[in-house]
Amino acid sequence: MASQSTNPARGMRDFLPVDVRKREYVIGIIKEVYESYGFEPLETPAVENLETLTGKYGEDGNQLIFKILKRRNSFEDELEHFVDNVKEEFYDDNNPLYPPEIENDFCDLALRYDLTVPLARVVANYKNDLPKFFKRYQIQPVWRADRPARGRFREFYQCDVDTIGSRSMLVEAEQISAVCEILERLGFEDYKVNLNHRKILTSLLDVCEVPQEKHTAALIILDKALKIGGEATIQEFEKSGLRSQGIKLAKFFYQIFERKNKIVLEKERVPKELLEDINNDTFEALEALISNHPESNRGIAEIKEILRFTKIQKVEKIDIDPSLARGLSYYTGAIFEIELFGFTGSLGGGGRYDGLIGMFGKEEIPACGFSLGLERILVVMEERGMFPEHLQNSAAADVMVTIWNEESIGESLKLASELREKGLRVLVYPEADKLAKQFKYADSMKISFVCVLGESELAENKVTLKNMKSGAQETLSRSEIAEKIK
Amino acid sequence: MASQSTNPARGMRDFLPVDVRKREYVIGIIKEVYESYGFEPLETPAVENLETLTGKYGEDGNQLIFKILKRRNSFEDELEHFVDNVKEEFYDDNNPLYPPEIENDFCDLALRYDLTVPLARVVANYKNDLPKFFKRYQIQPVWRADRPARGRFREFYQCDVDTIGSRSMLVEAEQISAVCEILERLGFEDYKVNLNHRKILTSLLDVCEVPQEKHTAALIILDKALKIGGEATIQEFEKSGLRSQGIKLAKFFYQIFERKNKIVLEKERVPKELLEDINNDTFEALEALISNHPESNRGIAEIKEILRFTKIQKVEKIDIDPSLARGLSYYTGAIFEIELFGFTGSLGGGGRYDGLIGMFGKEEIPACGFSLGLERILVVMEERGMFPEHLQNSAAADVMVTIWNEESIGESLKLASELREKGLRVLVYPEADKLAKQFKYADSMKISFVCVLGESELAENKVTLKNMKSGAQETLSRSEIAEKIK
Repeated sequence: MASQSTNPARGMRDFLPVDVRKREYVIGIIKEVYESYGFEPLETPAVENLETLTGKYGEDGNQLIFKILKRRNSFEDELEHFVDNVKEEFYDDNNPLYPPEIENDFCDLALRYDLTVPLARVVANYKNDLPKFFKRYQIQPVWRADRPARGRFREFYQCDVDTIGSRSMLVEAEQISAVCEILERLGFEDYKVNLNHRKILTSLLDVCEVPQEKHTAALIILDKALKIGGEATIQEFEKSGLRSQGIKLAKFFYQIFERKNKIVLEKERVPKELLEDINNDTFEALEALISNHPESNRGIAEIKEILRFTKIQKVEKIDIDPSLARGLSYYTGAIFEIELFGFTGSLGGGGRYDGLIGMFGKEEIPACGFSLGLERILVVMEERGMFPEHLQNSAAADVMVTIWNEESIGESLKLASELREKGLRVLVYPEADKLAKQFKYADSMKISFVCVLGESELAENKVTLKNMKSGAQETLSRSEIAEKIK
Repeated sequence: MASQSTNPARGMRDFLPVDVRKREYVIGIIKEVYESYGFEPLETPAVENLETLTGKYGEDGNQLIFKILKRRNSFEDELEHFVDNVKEEFYDDNNPLYPPEIENDFCDLALRYDLTVPLARVVANYKNDLPKFFKRYQIQPVWRADRPARGRFREFYQCDVDTIGSRSMLVEAEQISAVCEILERLGFEDYKVNLNHRKILTSLLDVCEVPQEKHTAALIILDKALKIGGEATIQEFEKSGLRSQGIKLAKFFYQIFERKNKIVLEKERVPKELLEDINNDTFEALEALISNHPESNRGIAEIKEILRFTKIQKVEKIDIDPSLARGLSYYTGAIFEIELFGFTGSLGGGGRYDGLIGMFGKEEIPACGFSLGLERILVVMEERGMFPEHLQNSAAADVMVTIWNEESIGESLKLASELREKGLRVLVYPEADKLAKQFKYADSMKISFVCVLGESELAENKVTLKNMKSGAQETLSRSEIAEKIK
């Protein structure tokens, strides 16, 4: 057994105390802000019925679902069934009858892949118990059998906030405001929220004569336009047989990108005033191009309403970005994404998806959500040293009580109890040992204060308190210790 | 799709907001107390390599592990390999070559089954990063493919606390003290901690001439002796061919059980004084019977030391129970279990297991742990109505702001922001609607205060605040609102 690997499974991570504390700090702020907006916590099981998840994430997503084997007899029955009835057709290369989903026969459960499908299931299952407007947040891990890479894990947390049941733009505005508040409280300054609307995108593509069936392809190209630049974007359009349309779109985006590039060059904080100007320019350009399209007005009006509401909530780092597409095809209204200067990939995003949440029922239910990527936030905060000092050098306790000798263990325990009652976190060295070793241990644990209860201290009912940073020592009465440490 | 089940998977549960809040309340107290004793948080992945878990939980445990199918090509390769090379031998009833572990060929990962094996893996993997004495707590779900029953789920939380690296009885005393403090803070009064020692059990069995190879069988009978009573216990011993030994053991336990029954009859609080008397009786009886056995003295001395240390920490609900066996065979020293009057099954338990934590390395590492069953604690607290009032009727927000009309949405959002800045959780009704409907909604959400910003209020820059419980309404200046609600 000694030769067995003790690493966590591929793409998974152990979180030692210092890691857990940092994660909990970020999660704590996210929860606190979401709760201040009246969002309520929801938790769903890590394991879902396989049929709940299949067909929800497209072919690519389906391949990344971790599937759980049927137990014992059911599995052996399936195996027998396969051998007796299926295998010949399955291994016949000329027979396309068995697509790659053969493994689904052997599995009945799967690991949660995202937090949206479980939410849709919950909304359908408890519809009589849930309020008319259901505002929930959910901060839980999801699992994807992706190829692990820097910042990409097979177990990672999503922090989702969704409002179910209202078509009001107040919903979008609240979610954007809440997310910005979270980012500010975590110490981010150089971010902005890119905002667009599916109806604006559709109008743009229509006006530039992109045929309906190529909208999705065009959206995928647009999604990376800002990253690859104007020329490469046009080449991409050309490859898709959309050369003339691509040039039209590019001309339109050119003026917008040009101004945006200026902001990016400033690197530092996002200048709010500049953003407001640029947004006005963008609206002007949009209206000039698409205002005749029947869907564009609603898109633009909704975006403007969101801007008006967020401004009231003192959120002004919003950048109207008509090229923002967001991969997922289920969005129906506003879409948004957090951009951090100098960081590739976004810290989170979301939008309105009025068709999806009713997938398990019969009615269409309006919904809008914002998902924060906890792992990315943590990676950036770590790289930039954004955690508060007490988390960078987190200690297991506020004070350690040493053990003088076997006989005095009781006295040390008593002191520890007294200090705990006063609200301190107290570590007791677990055994009688050389004092030097005990100090060394306290030091390695980054503990700031150590109490010594030697013979003379016990005789006088006093305690020697050592400040581990300054090295200063003083002998105090037992009742003074807690105050001194605080 | 509409016909698909929207229930959570079998034995799994969704936690709606009111459930999550109760769970977080209990978990919060557990964490706070553990941290006050210097325990540090650890988190490990939900998914472990299958080989990390196999062979660690016995045959019964192994069958309850949820196993994850290899992905796509690896799975198909295994299937092909099975069809080509394995199936004939597997389905040959005369061939015992393929035991039930055949499914392990198709799987590479598995869901976490407990928190102890992952801890052992972590201790082996990070031995240079972990402190000499590693005190960790871990509160995470585990998954077992058990038959679901009342209070038994397939996904449930364990709350483990373990101290690695010291043989001192201070470790046991600290864990027992911490657990008692948790129970007291949660509001439990009628509990006690049953305490025994593996060396006492071994000595007792030896002295009563139970042969070594029948120790485990005898321990299993003893484990339920208190529940089934003296006569049934002797019958069980008889079935195992241990009639005379059983009578000897029963005689010894008779006097102890008799007094214990008296305590049980009192039902209410556990009388500390009585417990101390009984413990002294128990020690007398034990010493009379086993003091000549070479192992007994260490067992009794360690138990006495634990009692001395816990008493210093004002923990006195400890009941020495020489019949306490605890199922798991890996314990090597003290063992303990929480008993709640009128509740079958324990709320948690643990003990010293000096052999186990080194399973992935070469050295023996001393360890002692206490595991609390979160689900059981929650079940009892729910049955007894032990949650604080604000959790029984938890509201999504402290106050709701209504929307007067489309035009005034901005004013409502502004007020909401102001109230949030003052630390309140504020829900804004998401759309313009009849005021009566908005009040009804606030009522259904159990929100205590509602703000109305009508035309007259807006004109005077005031707000009408309605107390939803009393029905009282008053018109206040915006700055007074927050104070009033608090």
